[in-house]
Amino acid sequence: MSDSDAPRVCPNPYRVTIADGDSTTDLQILEGTLGPAAVDIQQLYGQHNLLAYDPGFRSTASCKSAITFIDGDAGILLYRGYPIEELAEHSNFMEVAHLLMFGELPTLNGYKPFWTEITRHTLLHEQVLNFYRGFRRDAHPMAIMVGVVGALSAFYHDDIDLQDRDSRIHAALRLLAKIPTIAAASHTYSVGRPIRYPCNDLDYAGNFLQMIFGVPSETYKVDPVLSKAMDLIFVLHADHEQNASTSTVRLAASSGANPIACIAAGIASLWGPAHGGANEAVIRMLTEIGKAENIPKAIARAKDKNDSFRLMGFGHRVYKNFDPRARVIQKWPRMF
Amino acid sequence: MSDSDAPRVCPNPYRVTIADGDSTTDLQILEGTLGPAAVDIQQLYGQHNLLAYDPGFRSTASCKSAITFIDGDAGILLYRGYPIEELAEHSNFMEVAHLLMFGELPTLNGYKPFWTEITRHTLLHEQVLNFYRGFRRDAHPMAIMVGVVGALSAFYHDDIDLQDRDSRIHAALRLLAKIPTIAAASHTYSVGRPIRYPCNDLDYAGNFLQMIFGVPSETYKVDPVLSKAMDLIFVLHADHEQNASTSTVRLAASSGANPIACIAAGIASLWGPAHGGANEAVIRMLTEIGKAENIPKAIARAKDKNDSFRLMGFGHRVYKNFDPRARVIQKWPRMF
Amino acid sequence: MSDSDAPRVCPNPYRVTIADGDSTTDLQILEGTLGPAAVDIQQLYGQHNLLAYDPGFRSTASCKSAITFIDGDAGILLYRGYPIEELAEHSNFMEVAHLLMFGELPTLNGYKPFWTEITRHTLLHEQVLNFYRGFRRDAHPMAIMVGVVGALSAFYHDDIDLQDRDSRIHAALRLLAKIPTIAAASHTYSVGRPIRYPCNDLDYAGNFLQMIFGVPSETYKVDPVLSKAMDLIFVLHADHEQNASTSTVRLAASSGANPIACIAAGIASLWGPAHGGANEAVIRMLTEIGKAENIPKAIARAKDKNDSFRLMGFGHRVYKNFDPRARVIQKWPRMF
Amino acid sequence: MSDSDAPRVCPNPYRVTIADGDSTTDLQILEGTLGPAAVDIQQLYGQHNLLAYDPGFRSTASCKSAITFIDGDAGILLYRGYPIEELAEHSNFMEVAHLLMFGELPTLNGYKPFWTEITRHTLLHEQVLNFYRGFRRDAHPMAIMVGVVGALSAFYHDDIDLQDRDSRIHAALRLLAKIPTIAAASHTYSVGRPIRYPCNDLDYAGNFLQMIFGVPSETYKVDPVLSKAMDLIFVLHADHEQNASTSTVRLAASSGANPIACIAAGIASLWGPAHGGANEAVIRMLTEIGKAENIPKAIARAKDKNDSFRLMGFGHRVYKNFDPRARVIQKWPRMF
Amino acid sequence: MSDSDAPRVCPNPYRVTIADGDSTTDLQILEGTLGPAAVDIQQLYGQHNLLAYDPGFRSTASCKSAITFIDGDAGILLYRGYPIEELAEHSNFMEVAHLLMFGELPTLNGYKPFWTEITRHTLLHEQVLNFYRGFRRDAHPMAIMVGVVGALSAFYHDDIDLQDRDSRIHAALRLLAKIPTIAAASHTYSVGRPIRYPCNDLDYAGNFLQMIFGVPSETYKVDPVLSKAMDLIFVLHADHEQNASTSTVRLAASSGANPIACIAAGIASLWGPAHGGANEAVIRMLTEIGKAENIPKAIARAKDKNDSFRLMGFGHRVYKNFDPRARVIQKWPRMF
Amino acid sequence: MSDSDAPRVCPNPYRVTIADGDSTTDLQILEGTLGPAAVDIQQLYGQHNLLAYDPGFRSTASCKSAITFIDGDAGILLYRGYPIEELAEHSNFMEVAHLLMFGELPTLNGYKPFWTEITRHTLLHEQVLNFYRGFRRDAHPMAIMVGVVGALSAFYHDDIDLQDRDSRIHAALRLLAKIPTIAAASHTYSVGRPIRYPCNDLDYAGNFLQMIFGVPSETYKVDPVLSKAMDLIFVLHADHEQNASTSTVRLAASSGANPIACIAAGIASLWGPAHGGANEAVIRMLTEIGKAENIPKAIARAKDKNDSFRLMGFGHRVYKNFDPRARVIQKWPRMF
Repeated sequence: MSDSDAPRVCPNPYRVTIADGDSTTDLQILEGTLGPAAVDIQQLYGQHNLLAYDPGFRSTASCKSAITFIDGDAGILLYRGYPIEELAEHSNFMEVAHLLMFGELPTLNGYKPFWTEITRHTLLHEQVLNFYRGFRRDAHPMAIMVGVVGALSAFYHDDIDLQDRDSRIHAALRLLAKIPTIAAASHTYSVGRPIRYPCNDLDYAGNFLQMIFGVPSETYKVDPVLSKAMDLIFVLHADHEQNASTSTVRLAASSGANPIACIAAGIASLWGPAHGGANEAVIRMLTEIGKAENIPKAIARAKDKNDSFRLMGFGHRVYKNFDPRARVIQKWPRMF
Repeated sequence: MSDSDAPRVCPNPYRVTIADGDSTTDLQILEGTLGPAAVDIQQLYGQHNLLAYDPGFRSTASCKSAITFIDGDAGILLYRGYPIEELAEHSNFMEVAHLLMFGELPTLNGYKPFWTEITRHTLLHEQVLNFYRGFRRDAHPMAIMVGVVGALSAFYHDDIDLQDRDSRIHAALRLLAKIPTIAAASHTYSVGRPIRYPCNDLDYAGNFLQMIFGVPSETYKVDPVLSKAMDLIFVLHADHEQNASTSTVRLAASSGANPIACIAAGIASLWGPAHGGANEAVIRMLTEIGKAENIPKAIARAKDKNDSFRLMGFGHRVYKNFDPRARVIQKWPRMF
Repeated sequence: MSDSDAPRVCPNPYRVTIADGDSTTDLQILEGTLGPAAVDIQQLYGQHNLLAYDPGFRSTASCKSAITFIDGDAGILLYRGYPIEELAEHSNFMEVAHLLMFGELPTLNGYKPFWTEITRHTLLHEQVLNFYRGFRRDAHPMAIMVGVVGALSAFYHDDIDLQDRDSRIHAALRLLAKIPTIAAASHTYSVGRPIRYPCNDLDYAGNFLQMIFGVPSETYKVDPVLSKAMDLIFVLHADHEQNASTSTVRLAASSGANPIACIAAGIASLWGPAHGGANEAVIRMLTEIGKAENIPKAIARAKDKNDSFRLMGFGHRVYKNFDPRARVIQKWPRMF
Repeated sequence: MSDSDAPRVCPNPYRVTIADGDSTTDLQILEGTLGPAAVDIQQLYGQHNLLAYDPGFRSTASCKSAITFIDGDAGILLYRGYPIEELAEHSNFMEVAHLLMFGELPTLNGYKPFWTEITRHTLLHEQVLNFYRGFRRDAHPMAIMVGVVGALSAFYHDDIDLQDRDSRIHAALRLLAKIPTIAAASHTYSVGRPIRYPCNDLDYAGNFLQMIFGVPSETYKVDPVLSKAMDLIFVLHADHEQNASTSTVRLAASSGANPIACIAAGIASLWGPAHGGANEAVIRMLTEIGKAENIPKAIARAKDKNDSFRLMGFGHRVYKNFDPRARVIQKWPRMF
Repeated sequence: MSDSDAPRVCPNPYRVTIADGDSTTDLQILEGTLGPAAVDIQQLYGQHNLLAYDPGFRSTASCKSAITFIDGDAGILLYRGYPIEELAEHSNFMEVAHLLMFGELPTLNGYKPFWTEITRHTLLHEQVLNFYRGFRRDAHPMAIMVGVVGALSAFYHDDIDLQDRDSRIHAALRLLAKIPTIAAASHTYSVGRPIRYPCNDLDYAGNFLQMIFGVPSETYKVDPVLSKAMDLIFVLHADHEQNASTSTVRLAASSGANPIACIAAGIASLWGPAHGGANEAVIRMLTEIGKAENIPKAIARAKDKNDSFRLMGFGHRVYKNFDPRARVIQKWPRMF
Repeated sequence: MSDSDAPRVCPNPYRVTIADGDSTTDLQILEGTLGPAAVDIQQLYGQHNLLAYDPGFRSTASCKSAITFIDGDAGILLYRGYPIEELAEHSNFMEVAHLLMFGELPTLNGYKPFWTEITRHTLLHEQVLNFYRGFRRDAHPMAIMVGVVGALSAFYHDDIDLQDRDSRIHAALRLLAKIPTIAAASHTYSVGRPIRYPCNDLDYAGNFLQMIFGVPSETYKVDPVLSKAMDLIFVLHADHEQNASTSTVRLAASSGANPIACIAAGIASLWGPAHGGANEAVIRMLTEIGKAENIPKAIARAKDKNDSFRLMGFGHRVYKNFDPRARVIQKWPRMF
């Protein structure tokens, strides 16, 4: 959230030079927070009338990020310097959210007010529930998310001041509190069950589960194993650098737009099959497999090159050797 | 819409070199469609473990665009090679939309089916009207646009195949037809008037006006001067290169996401005060001025450096000397 | 609307004296606008610790009214000095409304903007239509009127400044324009027909009729005789002095309350059987009679003292000999 | 509720005489229940063709009230003869309501059925909840009260017989039970929280608090100090003689109109800044002061004659020296 | 509608005898209206403790029908004695409806009031439109029909007196008028278009078409060929004897139940694939064929016994040689 | 549910003969499950061109039923062979439902999954609640049942395969679970109380009672005597052979129609005064009697032949001497 410090110039072995006839200019090489150095090309167009061509922005960094570090070759994922394995074992998602937002894990005294602030915002404005009635019951849940979060921006506009750090933090906490409520409502609306209110007596993951699975005709009891698994999944997906959705949020917001609307923009991007949509493919695959006894056959088919069946959800482009998040999942629940 | 051709390598006076110890590499210089050449930095990270640092992407091009050319110094704005002044004088917005989408102005025979296709999609699915009821009456119209367009993606998801050019075009035409209906409904909802249905007997701008200003208690007669002015404004704002909203749409869509949701993402960005929100500031200024007789005083205040009053909506960062669109507006309606 | 001038002291034969032991005080006798003089008892409580006892306020005037004069013995009803017979013959209800509000009939030039202002306000805020859905279909229409007009006050509150004459007039015009729309909707809601929008091409009475009787499956043609009759009824009921409903409005408003809410208060009072509810009794009687051929029998029953059947709607307590409004109705439609 | 006994003629030192030429008439002086005597002016208009002029009805009593007695000079407020201080200390609002309605405090055996009757009517007809959807979320709560109570009259019309004492009492109990539910819903609707159902396990004030402050995401625990304070406020505001709103209700009802609609009429009057609206000004002032530490500054400003800031809510026109209700508040909570 | 006359005993060659030991009883043979004679078995159970076993009721007649006569071998279909071919050529559906209901075609003077009565009932009670919102947009149209017609019975219950012929006829006319409105709304709801109101200026079939195909953004012009075809289809399907749906209506109504609810019961039966559902299969087949050029291939496939493709909608079980209705369709539109 | 076995030919004393001129044919006499033998008349029409005439189907059996046996003379009612008295004493309604569906009472191990399956389906799809809003509050509850159950068919159509026994059983269980929820909602909607969700912690009858009588303002405690009585009533009404509603369901379903829609058809028939409507008459009579002390007078009036008052709900046409269900009720609650 705080990118204000300009990157420092970096003593390093590279030299990047622009030669225009006889005149030659050196471009500055800047130090990254943890990863590779970066050539400063900001003046390329202004001074040399040259553009840099980089579709997909694989080589271009648009900001200095102090939040997440990935070493794809070594299978390392750090949030604010903490290895994901450690966080998964010792911290819950609320603590990780605090870490990502403020740069440090909450103290015992700091956790309580942070959580209280979250619980104060779990409820949606009643009028927001009307949006759901605008959707057909067979609407794609991601479409519902884009629409409802986009519409939510209408409810919190005049009181957001992007120039004010407290105001930005407040907007972030509000979203952190409300997104599970919105997501759960998208599901219950789809299956024709009544939308559940949040329950602040439960923790973040447990509350999400009761909103997803609870029905008014029975008391919902949170299964602690399921709840911990849910929390773990939230921890592992909390941040993943400048990916398409994160970049979309940043780009949309670069015009000073309403931050909640910009999160809706990010959700739009997340929907795509090349990004979050990959998870949808996993769920379809699991539904196809159906039950545990079908797993060996599925693996056999996946190994058979002539079979169209493919294992989904294994591996990630940036991790060349292994995905550190997969290792955490693999060890679980034995590690608890 | 068609970026498939890779940019050609450009014979030119520049040379950009990366020196790493003794080894030196030349980066390729590519030819732009009309504007400056571009250094290809795609392999920078992969081969040299170097990033390019360019917050705001001022020097970085993410695609080769054959649609719009801007020469900010000369005050030139071309759509598909046609100067904006010519299009403003001789073409209506539907023809310009055809030009931008397909690269050429419609023939006499081609215009009719294009327009017929548009009229077939002006109506919104009735259920979409429910979304509006989810908003407070004082909701910001841009928030309504983000929410409703985002939600619209739910209605057109399974039948969009991004790999299929016809399907992409169909999605674009659908949006071209429905956006005025959605925008007008956002306005009438805010002021508490009944939402109007489109009227396919009117042209694009005239229909938009009747949806904005029409009331059920009276027959709405389109004022041809007002209607032509509206159409002109649509022509002048039809495209403006890789700005924040356009880039947001492209970036969001790079994951293969639903294109209607991606347009919602672009609208989120457009909302910002540094982008489309500037128009909102103009309207606020005009409301403050109030009537024609107050204009001289407003100009005097604007010239007074001690007065906080500022003229809004004049000039644009990319045009160093004059904005070609302003010249068109200035000549109008005398030129017709 | 303008009661600002204090009543003048009146030279007259009466003398009202308060004797408290030896001390004797004369109360001032004030001149009425057209009718009887009035003893000023404002200081009775403050100076003499005496109250005046007058249940029903038959002898007490709470304001000097320059609007309506009734001479019950002579059967005279004047609006702003014009006999009701003249107004019924030569003026329509809009002109009479102008007369009552501003003290004079509109000129040819003055009528047009007055009527235009009315038409600008005939539509209800769309959200107001939701109120109707809160009623059972068998709700009493007067209950709907109290509820909807009361609720309407929410839509026009902050912009009403009771200290400002223009603002008060604007509120009055708004109500004059919207009350027929609200009343017609109360009826169509009761019978399960769609609520009609006003049609500004019709005159005041004609528009009311089309909103009451029109259906979407047919074009409604206004019957000029029916429309004139409706207008005449509006003229005859336009004002009737300090009756219960008018006094309720004035009393409620004496706290500076929202004037639209105060009109709702007046409607509540009008509902009562001793006031406007008498008209309901007439309609029930007419329904019971059913058709023209049953009239002689009904009259015979009314004359039979042993029969419980009574003629309703004939006569009014204040008119000792005849009701001047009945005479107008009796002559009509022959007089046109 | 019971005005049937005619006031008795009062032996007293006053004599009020009307002289018309030579003829002189004495008006009767009647005994008040507790306060000043009253001159009977009922025949003034009928016999002398004179009106009494008393705008605001400061000197005119429209009924003999056995309910409340105020001695403004001595700072005395009695309900049915009981000093307000005693009631505040020993009785809760339900008991006071019983006292006001029936003339006596409930016995131990009488309280239970009275309270049971109240709880049977706390729920609103489900359709009534639809009215709220007719309001914008920024509607003034008093407008909502006027609209919803006015509309409520539609639900209880045919079964109310104003000639029947039991029916009148039943209507009163129904309103006593439903008004808190309606008021709380007005608030929760405004802030976008779900409307709460009443909870009959709580007492009158506690239930009101849970409907105002409760949220579905947490269990609401009634704070006994807050609840007692609320009850005390209800006791102190239970009746205050023939003020504007009470008189409006009586006047509206004098036509025999639906009593619930007449209460809506009274609420309209209560809204005004010269009446209940004064409380709104207090809340605005408190909001402006904001926190306890700002109180000294506020008092200083209030004392500074050049400062526009004024202390609101202190004193009442009828109490010349002190307001007995203020003294009760002042002693509280020490007295419990 | 009038079955009151008991069937007459028929002189005929059959004799049906029940022998129980020595005692032998002859059953009466009754004369049919046009077709075969019938053995009266009403006393079988009462007198002989014997049941008749006839699943599907192929041999059992439950009433004497004077409405429709079918000779399956000869391909004859008569309504009230008129051959279907004649009616198709010379009468519209309204005339045929009159014929079926009253036994005779309307005279010139009789048609007008019949049609006026129909138009008076084409509108649905506004509240009925709410039912549609209870359906998912992908609801089967027949399910919507069952639900909405079933619910309609609530609106017309107390005023239907089954013992009164006029009341029964009124119920029938009401349904005749409203069923097209309900059916069209089922369709427009499914496709997300606004529900259309009927237009009484059009004839029965034309109005149905405008309700099905009309959109608010364009004026709908009825195609006379399409309209005549629709009317013809109505004529040909107007009655078809004691089929499953008709029998269901009669059986349901035998308890004296609400006739509109009983029609809903008949619609439930009509939905089945062995009855009206066969038409659904035809539509699916036509959709599969898609366009005229695919017809030859479809016919070839239908003739190929190894191909699963089957021609749907040709032939009907009761017509052994040909279906007289098919012949009418075949000649059309040449015959007009 | 299983009628697959064809009835066996029965050795018996009857002989039914058809004589056509000289040729004589004997009809087969078939054995009933428990009751009288049946003459097979299936070929009557096909072979002899004769129909059987039997309005009301008193002598005609349309299926062989193994479910219920009634001996009207002896006052015997058996479900699957069990006397109703035994079931009433030892089994609850869920066990009886199991018995009727599967032919046997559930074992201890079998009851649990049966009940669990029921509880999984007690909730209605949220959208179904919208249907209720389509009804006026004074709608007849049976009309609501026909409409809502009819509409419910839309929600469960594609996944019902009538050819598949499991699918049929699943549809039956779903209805068994949902009908109480629908019925209770019909009641609470009528009286304006919020619709209650089912509570799976209660048994079938107890849950029904809490949905009927529960209010959100109080905790509902099931009265065990009332609950047992309700369950007993369900047991006694669980089946009653081929009555009008059951036959309507069977006939409607004979076309292969949606089974839920066919149940709606049966409800339509049940509504009639000659069938289930008789219960409505009982309730009206009880309401008229009012309280226990009025019973002797009511009995006296019922015995007085000149009095129009009649005892309703005693006796049933098929039971000549006594109704076995009445005897069960009479003994209750002493027998528990």
